[in-house]
Amino acid sequence: MRHMKRSLGAKTIVYPAPVFVIGTYDSTGKANVMTASWAGLCCSRPPCVAVALRKATSTYGNIVQRQAFTVSIPSEKYLKQTDYFGLVSGRDVDKFAVTGLTAARSEIVDAPYVAEFPLVLECRLFKTIELGLHTQFIGEIMDVKADEDVIGLDGLDMAKVRPFVFAPDTQFYYGIGSFAGRAFDAGRELIR
Amino acid sequence: MRHMKRSLGAKTIVYPAPVFVIGTYDSTGKANVMTASWAGLCCSRPPCVAVALRKATSTYGNIVQRQAFTVSIPSEKYLKQTDYFGLVSGRDVDKFAVTGLTAARSEIVDAPYVAEFPLVLECRLFKTIELGLHTQFIGEIMDVKADEDVIGLDGLDMAKVRPFVFAPDTQFYYGIGSFAGRAFDAGRELIR
Repeated sequence: MRHMKRSLGAKTIVYPAPVFVIGTYDSTGKANVMTASWAGLCCSRPPCVAVALRKATSTYGNIVQRQAFTVSIPSEKYLKQTDYFGLVSGRDVDKFAVTGLTAARSEIVDAPYVAEFPLVLECRLFKTIELGLHTQFIGEIMDVKADEDVIGLDGLDMAKVRPFVFAPDTQFYYGIGSFAGRAFDAGRELIR
Repeated sequence: MRHMKRSLGAKTIVYPAPVFVIGTYDSTGKANVMTASWAGLCCSRPPCVAVALRKATSTYGNIVQRQAFTVSIPSEKYLKQTDYFGLVSGRDVDKFAVTGLTAARSEIVDAPYVAEFPLVLECRLFKTIELGLHTQFIGEIMDVKADEDVIGLDGLDMAKVRPFVFAPDTQFYYGIGSFAGRAFDAGRELIR
């Protein structure tokens, strides 16, 4: 058989998983961020993004209390800081102070975002879904903000945003590669 | 201000979005596939993946009826076929017949997957969340299967799976780039 597949078991694997940074305020108003890859868009109207977190994180409590969060999407040049955001708890350290990155206050929702990251989603909590180890927070996207210098002639330019992705099985990060085609277009030649 | 951000409005944008192919059977047992990018992992225990679909798709009805679906992750070399899967409805055409790709029957769940694609998740429907235009289907991952030739020494190798990603704003596809770092490791030097 040409495509001999090996069973890897019932694991949380997709390729690739995104690398998002979730911004929240705690009860004292201290800004916190954590890295999340169990996440993705989930509705166009209202525009929504889903982010799954464990109850053990301080971000979990912050979202429940503030009913808001941001998603800051890091460029590859902030890989080290982004990985750090997933290694330590906001209960123990001030992650903005340690990395020297800037907590910008959203004017739309009650949450901070990472000013240096090129792309930001500001979300109000829309639904909370208990799944098991993770709770899925569904945020309604109230606004998307992007640095002027990552917006190209065709719109938000992947090659300028330069996000990176996560491989859950190996736990390696990868950059984004080359333009590969136009969606809703590349397959047209197969339409009879 | 160094990071002058422009508001893009309340849009469904994250960078990058994944490109997944959802496999289902219809009521007659005909295999269908559609492309979905509003998707991502959402729980580690039980292992779950979320896929958001519009009610208008034939896949929507198939999942409701069969309580199962697969996620086949295409390599970049199948970009044309994958894009086609998102352009037409399974009500009108047999997408496997047109593309010449193979519908393999899952032995674990009541759904087919794309045999030629290197990575496959077999899911039973776990929860259904109504959000608005999209319904989020949360599938419990019963097994992950990968082609032998995409498994490397460290595990499932991103450079061999060669998935591609979607930029929602420009509607362009991009390949995956180079190894960029180790997760839960690259940020350790910032821990004091």
